[in-house]
Amino acid sequence: MLAMFGARACSALWGSRTVSRVQILRTLSGMTVAQIDEEVAKLLQLKAKLGGDDGKIQFVLKTPKGTRDYNPKQMAIREKVFNTIVHCFKRHGAETIDTPVFELKETLTGKYGEDSKLIYDLKDQGGELLSLRYDLTVPFARYLAMNKITNIKRYHIAKVYRRDNPAMTRGRYREFYQCDFDIAGQYDAMIPDAECLKIVYEILSELDLGDFRIKVNDRRILDGMFAVCGVPDDKFRTICSTVDKLDKMPWEEVKKEMVNEKGLSEEAADQIGEYVSMQGGMDLAERLLQDPKMSQSKQACAGLTDVKLLFSYLQLFQITDKVVFDLSLARGLDYYTGVIYEALLTQAGVAPVVVEAQNGAPGSTEESVSVGSVAGGGRYDGLVGMFDPKGRKVPCVGVSIGIERIFSIMEQKAEACAEKIRTTEVQIMVASAQKNLLEERLRLVTELWNAGIKAEVMYKKNPKLLSQLQHCEESGIPLVAILGEQELKDGVVKLRVVSTREEVDISRGELVEEIKKRTS
Amino acid sequence: MLAMFGARACSALWGSRTVSRVQILRTLSGMTVAQIDEEVAKLLQLKAKLGGDDGKIQFVLKTPKGTRDYNPKQMAIREKVFNTIVHCFKRHGAETIDTPVFELKETLTGKYGEDSKLIYDLKDQGGELLSLRYDLTVPFARYLAMNKITNIKRYHIAKVYRRDNPAMTRGRYREFYQCDFDIAGQYDAMIPDAECLKIVYEILSELDLGDFRIKVNDRRILDGMFAVCGVPDDKFRTICSTVDKLDKMPWEEVKKEMVNEKGLSEEAADQIGEYVSMQGGMDLAERLLQDPKMSQSKQACAGLTDVKLLFSYLQLFQITDKVVFDLSLARGLDYYTGVIYEALLTQAGVAPVVVEAQNGAPGSTEESVSVGSVAGGGRYDGLVGMFDPKGRKVPCVGVSIGIERIFSIMEQKAEACAEKIRTTEVQIMVASAQKNLLEERLRLVTELWNAGIKAEVMYKKNPKLLSQLQHCEESGIPLVAILGEQELKDGVVKLRVVSTREEVDISRGELVEEIKKRTS
Repeated sequence: MLAMFGARACSALWGSRTVSRVQILRTLSGMTVAQIDEEVAKLLQLKAKLGGDDGKIQFVLKTPKGTRDYNPKQMAIREKVFNTIVHCFKRHGAETIDTPVFELKETLTGKYGEDSKLIYDLKDQGGELLSLRYDLTVPFARYLAMNKITNIKRYHIAKVYRRDNPAMTRGRYREFYQCDFDIAGQYDAMIPDAECLKIVYEILSELDLGDFRIKVNDRRILDGMFAVCGVPDDKFRTICSTVDKLDKMPWEEVKKEMVNEKGLSEEAADQIGEYVSMQGGMDLAERLLQDPKMSQSKQACAGLTDVKLLFSYLQLFQITDKVVFDLSLARGLDYYTGVIYEALLTQAGVAPVVVEAQNGAPGSTEESVSVGSVAGGGRYDGLVGMFDPKGRKVPCVGVSIGIERIFSIMEQKAEACAEKIRTTEVQIMVASAQKNLLEERLRLVTELWNAGIKAEVMYKKNPKLLSQLQHCEESGIPLVAILGEQELKDGVVKLRVVSTREEVDISRGELVEEIKKRTS
Repeated sequence: MLAMFGARACSALWGSRTVSRVQILRTLSGMTVAQIDEEVAKLLQLKAKLGGDDGKIQFVLKTPKGTRDYNPKQMAIREKVFNTIVHCFKRHGAETIDTPVFELKETLTGKYGEDSKLIYDLKDQGGELLSLRYDLTVPFARYLAMNKITNIKRYHIAKVYRRDNPAMTRGRYREFYQCDFDIAGQYDAMIPDAECLKIVYEILSELDLGDFRIKVNDRRILDGMFAVCGVPDDKFRTICSTVDKLDKMPWEEVKKEMVNEKGLSEEAADQIGEYVSMQGGMDLAERLLQDPKMSQSKQACAGLTDVKLLFSYLQLFQITDKVVFDLSLARGLDYYTGVIYEALLTQAGVAPVVVEAQNGAPGSTEESVSVGSVAGGGRYDGLVGMFDPKGRKVPCVGVSIGIERIFSIMEQKAEACAEKIRTTEVQIMVASAQKNLLEERLRLVTELWNAGIKAEVMYKKNPKLLSQLQHCEESGIPLVAILGEQELKDGVVKLRVVSTREEVDISRGELVEEIKKRTS
């Protein structure tokens, strides 16, 4: 309610002469200081819009809250990251699809649990009720059901939208990219699941973001664990979302929430505490299959058997060095039904969020640093069936690369090493040494464009040679073709190498080949 | 009002027991047959949603009106088209930026004239009022003003949103891509403008869509023409939008609209009619500069002088064969201030919309076919200033490639020639001839992935060799690496060429090189 008490509501109140100040203050009472500050800021913004001192309408020059523009340098980094990711997806034989940025509102309804409140709705302008997509998984499931597709391996890179509290310095936005890879189809257990993990491993290795871990768990193990620890059936989901907080809160606090807020018995909480501290590999899955309590749950056993099988495939894929079976991994989304996973960067110094080292002595120089999850996913065998009129299921497993955090890190790295990032690919600048050579420059640049050379010319009739050369230095253009009266007479151009300032005359007919040779 | 009387409103009426049938019928009266049909369809949809015979909630499985998914084949075509376009933009030295899919509502206000009603607004969920971007030009201008950028050459490829009446068979959607190239900066006249036309020429030639024309005109010539023909100042915009209909309506009807609807004198309309029938090149600009009436307008003369200069540059760029100076070109958008242009495909047989041949005899076998505009743009020197607090201007010129129509044509072409489009780039399938070789297949495919080979393996423990080979045939995978007991013993794989069925044993150590050689 308070969040909706925005600038417009306020202005309506102030504007109406029948509303007394007391009424307004009464409406405002109960707001926190932060909320009042926000309202004041909105009113001032509104005032600015209504007109400055000169009566001219003022615009608020900004992008919407939680969003940003990408400038050419950021785009150059983004392109590089996307290329690496797409190349990996293609190496694994994926096709790609695209879906609209908005879906019928009802398509998204009932898929995201508590997070549904974060969905952006479109205004009802007559016609269908629409919402911006919240992820790429639900549109994918809708696409499969709608087209009756029962098997596909596809990737989808696109923006998704969440009305969350942005934390942009940490790469958390309201508009952000997801890079999803999913395998749909009835296949033998754990083979596609293992390939998803292989893909995460390959991408994080190739992007060279420092060390990482991939945590693996299974919804069935979590549910089985809750059952054998005495959690009532109807509390599985809420206890699961409390477990999900273990990456941000110490166990003591998680336990407190379970007992005090969610009404779990202390004993049940302690039993859960024991399990969720367990980490390991295939050995842990084997041990838990023998665990007197855990083995009582059919669900848990099915999950543990699959985790064991998964690790055998991960061994063949040569990626077990970074994968850990971790019973504390819960993941929020409602639709997972089996294996779940999440990748985290663990390298120190790459991110602004410092958490306490778990095993480090006080004052330890090597701090453990977390940027949170950079990839996550799992198996969702029931989602497509939710869209099928006859409830026909299509088993799916997939992974989503959380690219914004990766961008943030890459940007910081680029800044840190003062690396000069080129934002164009121009190979040569067509320049002139004297006046009145615009026509000659246009003629030459046309020759080069027509031959497929990336070339530029200044949009001035008589630019100074120095300013033409400076432009090359600034934007990293390696070559300049300089035209002058003499060169034109001789049928040559002066080819200048920007870095060495070396100059050589090249005949017009050989220029294209020479440029290709020098820039290949 | 009627458009907003949707399924929800109706159901509210039906649902309320205090509303009589008479009242409902009274509300429904005044609707057209088409509107009633639409309401009936919505109610039936609503009924379907409320539950089928089994009581299960039914989903309407569709994408929102005017939008579509892209399947892998369409994506393969889209990728090819984008590659051609991006390559051209890069050849001309452009950087790229990206902006959010939505803007503050006020950023878009007052930029699109009558078309503003087509803007999608987001629901007010508390916070800022947002709208989906309507084009990429206004966000670009906002970006320049916000970052105080005074010169840049950038491209931007992204989706834009218009609540228009979709005509999807003709490639007209509510969500569609624009590919924009713009040059911002204070430069000498017509040089950047000419490069924009060069880019359109290059892209349309490379995409091989058949013959095309690029029409050129200038807002100042239009305004000058209206002035000398006696159109009152306050009617320039509305008469201009009537002229804009000349590509869809014959002159007689356009004239009727001017005289009967817009209240122009018959004489003025006839004078306009004379001018807008003129087409030519630099010669026409020269002739009009001598025209006793036209030369009275300073504005027209400025425009004509620039068009003359423009054509001199187009000659140097070698593209005058497809560019025509056409006084009937008007273009709808409010923000243009100088040169405007539009590219049209003219080849017969590429599009579903058949218009009558202008000069063809009745029964002529060669029909003139129009798919409408595939690119358009112009100069907008005032737009950035609308965002700058001090009104500082940044001159801009740009072009937008209307990619959806191009996709439609490319899809039709691909279908027509039954061309097999590959949707993946897989080079080799790792297959097994006998049972129980899953582990060996996973081991080999890992070797290949790690060496950068695009490889696939079936997600089955014991797939049949035939089904593995069939998958290769269907998805165009050229090679198969077949593993069997014997091959494993000998340290080789059987390499099979899918097209010729030729098989040869290759030692494990040489496999990667052999695949690279055969698929390069």
